[in-house]
Amino acid sequence: MDAALPFDRFLSTHEAVLGFGATALIQHMLDVEAALAKAQADEGIVPTSAAVAIAAACRAERFDAQRIVADGAVAGTVAIPLVKALTAAVAAHDAPAAAWVHWGSTSQDVIDTAMVLATRASLVRIDAALDRTIAALTSHARAHRDTPMLARTLLQPAQVVSVGFKLLAWIAPLVRARRRLHDAAHTALQLQLGGAVGTLSTLGDRGDAVVRRVAAELGLRAPDGAWHTQRDDWVALGCELGVLCGSLGKIALDIGLLAQAEVGEMAEPSGGGRGGSSAMPHKRNPVGSMIVRAVALRTPQRVATLLAAMPQEHERGLGAWQAELAEWPQLMLGAEGAVHALADVAAGLSIDAARMRSNIDALNGLVFAEAASTLFAGVLGKSAAHALLDKLAKRCVAERRPLRELAHEARGADAALQSAIDVQALDQAFDVELAARRAGALAEQRLTPRS
Amino acid sequence: MDAALPFDRFLSTHEAVLGFGATALIQHMLDVEAALAKAQADEGIVPTSAAVAIAAACRAERFDAQRIVADGAVAGTVAIPLVKALTAAVAAHDAPAAAWVHWGSTSQDVIDTAMVLATRASLVRIDAALDRTIAALTSHARAHRDTPMLARTLLQPAQVVSVGFKLLAWIAPLVRARRRLHDAAHTALQLQLGGAVGTLSTLGDRGDAVVRRVAAELGLRAPDGAWHTQRDDWVALGCELGVLCGSLGKIALDIGLLAQAEVGEMAEPSGGGRGGSSAMPHKRNPVGSMIVRAVALRTPQRVATLLAAMPQEHERGLGAWQAELAEWPQLMLGAEGAVHALADVAAGLSIDAARMRSNIDALNGLVFAEAASTLFAGVLGKSAAHALLDKLAKRCVAERRPLRELAHEARGADAALQSAIDVQALDQAFDVELAARRAGALAEQRLTPRS
Amino acid sequence: MDAALPFDRFLSTHEAVLGFGATALIQHMLDVEAALAKAQADEGIVPTSAAVAIAAACRAERFDAQRIVADGAVAGTVAIPLVKALTAAVAAHDAPAAAWVHWGSTSQDVIDTAMVLATRASLVRIDAALDRTIAALTSHARAHRDTPMLARTLLQPAQVVSVGFKLLAWIAPLVRARRRLHDAAHTALQLQLGGAVGTLSTLGDRGDAVVRRVAAELGLRAPDGAWHTQRDDWVALGCELGVLCGSLGKIALDIGLLAQAEVGEMAEPSGGGRGGSSAMPHKRNPVGSMIVRAVALRTPQRVATLLAAMPQEHERGLGAWQAELAEWPQLMLGAEGAVHALADVAAGLSIDAARMRSNIDALNGLVFAEAASTLFAGVLGKSAAHALLDKLAKRCVAERRPLRELAHEARGADAALQSAIDVQALDQAFDVELAARRAGALAEQRLTPRS
Amino acid sequence: MDAALPFDRFLSTHEAVLGFGATALIQHMLDVEAALAKAQADEGIVPTSAAVAIAAACRAERFDAQRIVADGAVAGTVAIPLVKALTAAVAAHDAPAAAWVHWGSTSQDVIDTAMVLATRASLVRIDAALDRTIAALTSHARAHRDTPMLARTLLQPAQVVSVGFKLLAWIAPLVRARRRLHDAAHTALQLQLGGAVGTLSTLGDRGDAVVRRVAAELGLRAPDGAWHTQRDDWVALGCELGVLCGSLGKIALDIGLLAQAEVGEMAEPSGGGRGGSSAMPHKRNPVGSMIVRAVALRTPQRVATLLAAMPQEHERGLGAWQAELAEWPQLMLGAEGAVHALADVAAGLSIDAARMRSNIDALNGLVFAEAASTLFAGVLGKSAAHALLDKLAKRCVAERRPLRELAHEARGADAALQSAIDVQALDQAFDVELAARRAGALAEQRLTPRS
Repeated sequence: MDAALPFDRFLSTHEAVLGFGATALIQHMLDVEAALAKAQADEGIVPTSAAVAIAAACRAERFDAQRIVADGAVAGTVAIPLVKALTAAVAAHDAPAAAWVHWGSTSQDVIDTAMVLATRASLVRIDAALDRTIAALTSHARAHRDTPMLARTLLQPAQVVSVGFKLLAWIAPLVRARRRLHDAAHTALQLQLGGAVGTLSTLGDRGDAVVRRVAAELGLRAPDGAWHTQRDDWVALGCELGVLCGSLGKIALDIGLLAQAEVGEMAEPSGGGRGGSSAMPHKRNPVGSMIVRAVALRTPQRVATLLAAMPQEHERGLGAWQAELAEWPQLMLGAEGAVHALADVAAGLSIDAARMRSNIDALNGLVFAEAASTLFAGVLGKSAAHALLDKLAKRCVAERRPLRELAHEARGADAALQSAIDVQALDQAFDVELAARRAGALAEQRLTPRS
Repeated sequence: MDAALPFDRFLSTHEAVLGFGATALIQHMLDVEAALAKAQADEGIVPTSAAVAIAAACRAERFDAQRIVADGAVAGTVAIPLVKALTAAVAAHDAPAAAWVHWGSTSQDVIDTAMVLATRASLVRIDAALDRTIAALTSHARAHRDTPMLARTLLQPAQVVSVGFKLLAWIAPLVRARRRLHDAAHTALQLQLGGAVGTLSTLGDRGDAVVRRVAAELGLRAPDGAWHTQRDDWVALGCELGVLCGSLGKIALDIGLLAQAEVGEMAEPSGGGRGGSSAMPHKRNPVGSMIVRAVALRTPQRVATLLAAMPQEHERGLGAWQAELAEWPQLMLGAEGAVHALADVAAGLSIDAARMRSNIDALNGLVFAEAASTLFAGVLGKSAAHALLDKLAKRCVAERRPLRELAHEARGADAALQSAIDVQALDQAFDVELAARRAGALAEQRLTPRS
Repeated sequence: MDAALPFDRFLSTHEAVLGFGATALIQHMLDVEAALAKAQADEGIVPTSAAVAIAAACRAERFDAQRIVADGAVAGTVAIPLVKALTAAVAAHDAPAAAWVHWGSTSQDVIDTAMVLATRASLVRIDAALDRTIAALTSHARAHRDTPMLARTLLQPAQVVSVGFKLLAWIAPLVRARRRLHDAAHTALQLQLGGAVGTLSTLGDRGDAVVRRVAAELGLRAPDGAWHTQRDDWVALGCELGVLCGSLGKIALDIGLLAQAEVGEMAEPSGGGRGGSSAMPHKRNPVGSMIVRAVALRTPQRVATLLAAMPQEHERGLGAWQAELAEWPQLMLGAEGAVHALADVAAGLSIDAARMRSNIDALNGLVFAEAASTLFAGVLGKSAAHALLDKLAKRCVAERRPLRELAHEARGADAALQSAIDVQALDQAFDVELAARRAGALAEQRLTPRS
Repeated sequence: MDAALPFDRFLSTHEAVLGFGATALIQHMLDVEAALAKAQADEGIVPTSAAVAIAAACRAERFDAQRIVADGAVAGTVAIPLVKALTAAVAAHDAPAAAWVHWGSTSQDVIDTAMVLATRASLVRIDAALDRTIAALTSHARAHRDTPMLARTLLQPAQVVSVGFKLLAWIAPLVRARRRLHDAAHTALQLQLGGAVGTLSTLGDRGDAVVRRVAAELGLRAPDGAWHTQRDDWVALGCELGVLCGSLGKIALDIGLLAQAEVGEMAEPSGGGRGGSSAMPHKRNPVGSMIVRAVALRTPQRVATLLAAMPQEHERGLGAWQAELAEWPQLMLGAEGAVHALADVAAGLSIDAARMRSNIDALNGLVFAEAASTLFAGVLGKSAAHALLDKLAKRCVAERRPLRELAHEARGADAALQSAIDVQALDQAFDVELAARRAGALAEQRLTPRS
């Protein structure tokens, strides 16, 4: 059975673990070998019968994937025992065909391309989960477009916005992430095929043609040249996954904070044993956010290792490529785990509008200090208005009186303010619903997809 | 005087240090304040006279940049003392205008946009140095297109390629880096303007119009919305700089290795005190490669910090934004230092074709083992041919005899080989110039720019 | 004027920036040169008069530190221009003495030892700030030893503990950090002196004696041998600074969370313009915690770079040492900034016992579910008791009734519970003060220093 | 079957993968549960018969480890399904005993302690492999104590040392690493037992006694208090593993460089299919060094994640702990893989003394320039001597003449030099064996163990 270490699995999904496991890896490598033989047959390099025999043998279930992986550790590359096993399997049915297994290729060609194939499948899963997340959040955003909610800066209440506005700020980076991943994948999901040192010397002048055919067969981009030690396109894709995890981490952080008992504005779905505690019967832990945050903590270092492994010696590196090979699946596993966890959270997210309102009200109008200050600034000048509101804000806290009341008193006590600012205007500065509607309107424009 | 710490300066350039120093930062912030006032005047929010007065005061040389930076540490943001100083400066000439300083904006708007402006200037310098590097390397590649040179894998000799082919593998990622940086910058060089929590609430319904005007004034992209805690576009640009440094690091690693006395195939430019030793009179140290490699070691962690800082709480983070602000200039300083150092190395790079040839010859034909194996495989089958060459390669080393000779003997001793493979074909498999010409031809196609 | 980049300064202290600035660096290097000359004079290698002349010239204010640093970038090491300038300065007064400047040493000897000296001074400042932090927190812990406060797990209320217990959990890692830093410094604050390749070949058989004398003169440990490319002791010290920043970051995270308006249990000191907002008059931002958290985000990557730079080629690395040299001061600046920021926060920390109590009371006894479950488990078995309390906890939330009441009802409805558990015992399970006193007692034992 | 992902296995050992696999993890957790029950029985909290029944059930082979790990992902912690399964297993034989399973404990207690136990076993394997490595290298160092070999700085030849001296510089950090790991483990291998929030509230006043008993039963240190969110001791151990990998990486880097065909001074053991190539029959790749270097590239980021995960909220973190749990085994797997790979390399390391000598001789005495300069400096002054040797070094290269010859000519041409320096002294400056013997003598002192 294929597996990752227990706590790597904990932060990922079953599909991801299988997708980068030994069996999948071996199957992808075999797919490359089959495509390579076929392409060379089409170019007249390899006998067609040999290509057919090789393709027939390229079934992972016929090989002991665990054994091949283990033997690879001795040989220095998993391709050597695989090619040996494949050659034997082909020879058993068609002895002459065996001579054409892995023809013209090198270990890195097969392994890199296999990793590209595994990654392509993983990106499809990620894209689907992103789509699910965006749809769920958008639905919440529409339903609560104008529901008043605190905006918070430096973990302090700042102003009133709306749930729609808040959620839009989560959604927009995910929409951008899908597009950026798509673009980066378009470039990075390319065939690796260069032979021993990138010249495809064994193939003479048919190297380019073979590259194009193998790429077409596997549905991958044909590269400009081998990228054995030019990992920029590949690592750039890895970076995008890092950026995605950062955006997911921001959402999970916010949800975890909003789910605090003292805030209580949002809650993760529960039920079915989700988020319990082995000690405390009352606990409903936000375990989806927990997984996303854990991944968001680990992913930056995954990306750093990919970058650190870019300087690879000459035409094949001594260690850096192997470090990248180990790091990449970990990056993908984390990204899959995070996006799936967030998709589940988004689908079942609870939004408590009443609690949002009571958290606003508990502040006694303090978060409208800037609005009032702006209003007064037209009369008093900005510094004086800022200083006045600063003083009123302090009194609001100390005397537990609504800032609106204190602002009205201040207006009453100042002839210039009184004549320039009418009562309704001052009331508007403290209008919770108005502030939320304005934020909701901003969100509305951007929630409407443009393509 | 603006400065970075000594060893940060050591790994960067004078221009980069100035470009992210206190004076430049303050000037960029003032540029934002001036553009903001002008845009709001054009929208009729701020009196035109006030905008003129503010613009007139926005000259960094009139402020004590060091003092403002120091005071920012107490206030919690450098924008507070700057706005205070600017307000005072404006008030000194036009008291009512002072009320409109920083109107509608928040600290992060000004600081983020200032960092965008400093980064834009830095990217121009990086692009120029990349251009210089690519041009120099391309020139060497053309001059030595077919010069035979060893390709090496896992730090062992692998096959013969050409200098042109080798250099192309350095150039291609730099060409791609320029394009990717250009694309990422197109997205990331955007205005930050959202007011306290991203709604531009102070500007009522003219927020969008002001954003478009300020962006146009500063020559930046108008964002879809504030990105106070949505750092994905920005960090994606940071990632591209990380990828660039990885590609630069690979080249510097190769040069350092090729410059070893025992290899001696390339050398950095020397003279003018460059690369001496305080102890050893004979030393000519590859100090350009040293700088690039040092940067390539540090940069992955810079990028990791940017990614780690992406999860920022709610509408403005508590600490993560500040971490990003400190990390970003370090990233840029390193990238500028590395690309300038490599540009200098590329311009004066020495290529020793004779030494390259003698390193090939010293191997007694060993690196043609695959070519010979491929030739024999047509007759013996691949496994038998690989095993035969494996044996001959061992003898070549043990008996210090040319592999070509041993291969001819092997052919002579096997009737099937003798009849199927003629002497010239076997000689060709060991032909250094032929191998180099083939590699050179591959390089030629790709050295010809396509746009 | 010495300076770091603006946002590096923002996250550090004036003393730290000066301590690793060009002037300090040059002075430390000069101190090494003076000590080296004196030690060699004492061993009869260098004329005493030369040592005296050299020592007299070793005053940083006589040199243009900025110029030397800038020239170092060309030479490849800052030691070359410094040695040149020092030689000229000595020659101006005592021509023959100039011949003995830097005798037997190499650039890395002087630079590494200078960095050790700058670090020693930095560690003294860090230790003092840690002492101040621990004292302030201990004083709060004693004053509020038994004040009830919520413990929280996964950002959810868990149980009642006391402020004393909470603070102890902050203090203990700081006490351990001081001890670990002391131990690591004892090993790592060692002289670097090996000459060109670590053999001190110029000094013949007096190398060891010179090492011991120079070390004694500078108050540093005499190393077992040169550590030019054996950075383990040094990086181990860097790791301890990383661990310290992690512990500081945990405290700042907790304070930031406790200072949320909706929690309101603690607050940073304010006043004097501290923690204001350029937009919002009412803001009191926790800027001390902000700085600590920013540093805690950056530091792990500083440590990673030190570790990544450990593999250095042969007897002096090509780039990795230079990366370490640049990274180390950044690590120290951050650590100093964080510990000083936290010391200020700790000194002025506000603790709101009433708010802590009202946050407990708002939960309607939910956090005593485990205590009640434990009590019932003696009768019902653990699973049944856990399930019962799980049900009661759900009703407590849904019906907004105190869990204590519901528990008493459940006891009343079950004959076995009624006979085995008396009313007082069940009341005790919900006793806030009792829970706090027990936690306070635990803290008491550990607050009493053992050495 | 337990497994890590294929390329994580590739860089580790079979024992390490098993040691941190699901079965081992479950067994360690069961060991904790058994010890906990026994300790509480000894304290009279739990019936002795229950403790016996629990201990009898605590056998991993009776549980479906993979299933439990998978269910943990839903529950949010692997402890919940394990405790459930264990409770059922105990109940099947002794229904009342089931009530006492996991009594007083929380998930994190069991999981952290299980990780401590797995780590203890891993450290034993690491220590043994380090011992093996040190022994093998020491044996080579003694055998080649005085064998002349180039020292190299910045990848350029610097001076002549000896193989003994070179190897000592590899050995010393490994000896220190063993000691530091031992010390860090002494502190970090401690029991975790705090109950829900660290107060062991369920155990009343017998918490401390239970902690001491469980610790003794498991052979772990009894902690001063729970360390649920105080990870400093634990992460400090992780840092030491990072430092170890850095020291291993330096050795592997040197070996990889020395094994280059153009240098040829050392070679890894080969044979048994080790280090072959799927394309090139002649390759003997240094695959041991490759593995060590790959690990050394990844490990710094593992450590960074541990540090980044230190700031954990309140009494149990939301995500950071889970990140640490996933990262830690990866760190250990890498460390085990690297140290085992290097142990194998060290045991079979080939040292080519003849090639070392010919590499020295090929430099025509250039590396003795400092020695000659030092000699001449006594007469000419240091600057003049350095300049003279600089000139002679250039001629040595340009004219391909031995530097010794040129130095003798220079002496002959200068009356002062001629009278002050006799011919033998100048010859000595160029004496390869003498330089090697002096370096060997330095090594000798330190190779003799002091404890």
